[in-house]
Amino acid sequence: MKTCKIPVNLAQHAYPVYIGEAIYTDKTLLSRHIVGDQVLLLSNETVAPLYLDKLRQALSDYQSDVVLLPDGEAHKNFSSWQKILDVLAQRGHHRDSTLITLGGGVTGDIGGFAAATYQRGIPFIQIPTTLLAQVDASIGGKTAINHAVGKNLIGAFHQPNAVVIDLACLVTLPEREFKAGLAEIVKAALISDSEFFSWLEQQAQQLLAREHDALSHAIIRACEIKQSIVVRDEKESDIRALLNLGHTFGHAIEKLLDYGSWLHGEAVAVGLVLASRLSLHQQRISASDHQRIVNLLQILGLPTVLPESIARSDFMAAMKMDKKVRQGKLRFILLDSIGAAVICDTVSESELNQCL
Amino acid sequence: MKTCKIPVNLAQHAYPVYIGEAIYTDKTLLSRHIVGDQVLLLSNETVAPLYLDKLRQALSDYQSDVVLLPDGEAHKNFSSWQKILDVLAQRGHHRDSTLITLGGGVTGDIGGFAAATYQRGIPFIQIPTTLLAQVDASIGGKTAINHAVGKNLIGAFHQPNAVVIDLACLVTLPEREFKAGLAEIVKAALISDSEFFSWLEQQAQQLLAREHDALSHAIIRACEIKQSIVVRDEKESDIRALLNLGHTFGHAIEKLLDYGSWLHGEAVAVGLVLASRLSLHQQRISASDHQRIVNLLQILGLPTVLPESIARSDFMAAMKMDKKVRQGKLRFILLDSIGAAVICDTVSESELNQCL
Repeated sequence: MKTCKIPVNLAQHAYPVYIGEAIYTDKTLLSRHIVGDQVLLLSNETVAPLYLDKLRQALSDYQSDVVLLPDGEAHKNFSSWQKILDVLAQRGHHRDSTLITLGGGVTGDIGGFAAATYQRGIPFIQIPTTLLAQVDASIGGKTAINHAVGKNLIGAFHQPNAVVIDLACLVTLPEREFKAGLAEIVKAALISDSEFFSWLEQQAQQLLAREHDALSHAIIRACEIKQSIVVRDEKESDIRALLNLGHTFGHAIEKLLDYGSWLHGEAVAVGLVLASRLSLHQQRISASDHQRIVNLLQILGLPTVLPESIARSDFMAAMKMDKKVRQGKLRFILLDSIGAAVICDTVSESELNQCL
Repeated sequence: MKTCKIPVNLAQHAYPVYIGEAIYTDKTLLSRHIVGDQVLLLSNETVAPLYLDKLRQALSDYQSDVVLLPDGEAHKNFSSWQKILDVLAQRGHHRDSTLITLGGGVTGDIGGFAAATYQRGIPFIQIPTTLLAQVDASIGGKTAINHAVGKNLIGAFHQPNAVVIDLACLVTLPEREFKAGLAEIVKAALISDSEFFSWLEQQAQQLLAREHDALSHAIIRACEIKQSIVVRDEKESDIRALLNLGHTFGHAIEKLLDYGSWLHGEAVAVGLVLASRLSLHQQRISASDHQRIVNLLQILGLPTVLPESIARSDFMAAMKMDKKVRQGKLRFILLDSIGAAVICDTVSESELNQCL
C-alpha cells in the first residue's frame, strides 16, 4: 500500500501520522523526526523479540539505549516510569534526545509521560504495534501512568514528533488484542460517522479476518476521526471529551479488575453498551439503534455485559473517582444518534442505577 | 505599599505576579485565581507554623487539604512528589482543583510539578515565602524535582494561575536564606540591567538591613526582568537560557554537596563569579567589571569561591551532565558587559580548566 499521511496540525506543534506497511524500519522517514544524536527505545518483553532488532538496525547512526518493560496494564505505574528516567539520566541523554516507543497503548502512554517529564520535555515518536494503540492511544499527546486510586490519574499532554503506524506489525497481534482494538474503531464511528458505522457492520467479517483493504480503511478512517477532534481541542476543554465515549464505565471496570484480566478495549466495549443504554433511557436514541450497537460489538467478539465479579456499589464508587468528574457531577458522553455524541452533565445517580 | 501587578502574558496563558504586603491572606485576590471548589495547600515544616493557618482561614470556603514536606533541597525528590499525588488522588481532587504552594523554591518546584502531572495538569498558585523564590523560582512555570544524576532533571513547564509575593513573609526569613535570594537579584541585574547593578552596589547595606523601599524596589525590578525574558521565550528555546547565568556551575556545586550543605543561591553566587571569570578570560569583560561583580557578592555576604571539598575533576564531570549540554557541547552563559549576557557554545574543556 502507498503510505498515507494524516497531518495533526496543532497551534504550537504540527506532526504527521504515517499509515503504511514496513515503514517502522524506514531510516529516512524516522530520521526526519529525530532531533539530536541520541535515541531511547522503549518496548515491552512481548513486542521486543519480534520487532526491536530491526528498528535498532535502522537507527544504527544514533546512540541508542533500550528499556524493556514487562507487558501489561499492571506495569503502567510509577516504577516503570522511574526506570525509564533512570536510564535516560544515567546514560547521559540530553534534552534533544528522542524517545521512541515500540508497543501498545501502555508502552506509548508511559513512554510519552517519560518524554514529557525528562528535562521538562524531550521529543518522542510513537510506533504503535497494537490495533488499539494505532487507532486511538498513539495520536493526540495524552500520556499517563495509573495510580492505585484510578487509571491515567498521573500524566501530561505531550505531543509526539511523529506517529508511525505499520500494518505489518498487526500480523503477530493475538486475536483477543486485535478485537480489543476494534472496540475503539467502533467508538470512533459512533462519535462522528454513521456511514462508517454502517460500513463496519458490513465489513465485520473481513475485519475479523484482517483482510488488508478493510483493515487499512478502518485504521485510516479511525485516525482521521481522532485527528479531526484533537486539532479542534488539544487539551480536552471541550469536544475532545467525546472521545471518552464509554470510557468512564470502562475505566471503572479496569480499575475494579485491578488492570489485569480485561483489556482496555474490552472494558470500553462494555462501556459503549452502557453509554448506549443510558442514551436509550434518555430517549436520545431508538431501541433499534441500541440493538445495532450491541450486535456489532458481539459480532466483533467483544464483551457487552459487566463482569459478574463486579458489585454495582463498587462500580458506582469507582466511576465517581474518574477524571471526567467536574465539580462533583458525573459527566457522561452520550449518543444523540449513531454518529453523533454529546457531553451530558445531567445524569443523576438514580438514573444511572436504573440503567446498570 | 500599594500592591504592584506585573502581567506575564504568554501566548496560551496569561497570569499576574502580585507584589505587596499582607496580600497572601487576601481572600478576594486568591479567589480570583482558584478555579473549582477544592484546594490543596503544599508547604513545609518550617514555613507552615508561621503562615499556614492564616492562609487556611482565608480559604475556608473551599475543601482544603494540606501536605507538609520536610524542609530542604534534599526532599525535592520522587517520594515528595508522589506523596502530593497520593493525597490529591485519595482525597478525591478533581481536575479543577487548585494546588497552592506556600514556601520557598523547593516547595514551588515540587508543587508545580505535582500540579503539572495530576490529571494531566491542574491549576496552581505560587505563594513564595523566600526572597529567592519571590524574585526567580516562582515566575515562569519551570517545575521540577531532582534526580540522583542531576538537579531538576525531571520536570515540566506548567505556568501558575497567579504568583502572590508578600513582603511581610520575608520578616521571618533567616539571614542566610535572605542573602541567598540576593544572589538571584544580582544575576537579574547582570543579565540585562547595568543601572540596576549600580543601584544594587549603592543600596547593598539597605538591602542587607531589609529596608522596605530598597527591598521592594529590588524585588519588583528582578521580577520585571524575569517576566520580560519569560514572555519572549517561554520554553527556553533561546534567550530564556540567559537566566541560567552561573547555574551550570551552581548546579554542579549543589549536586556534589548532595543538595545539603549549600543553598541554591549560594551556589549560584559562586557560579556568577566563575561565569564572570570565564567572560574575563575570553576578553568579553574588563578586569574591573569582574572585580565589581566579586565585590558586590562579597558585600552581600555571599560565597565567591568553590567549596574546598570539591575536586576539580568531579566538578567538570558534574557540569557535563547538566541540562544545558547540547549535542555534547558545554553551553555557558557569559557576560559581554555588566547588564548584557550571551549564550556561548564554544567554550573548550581546557579553557574551562584554566579558569577553575
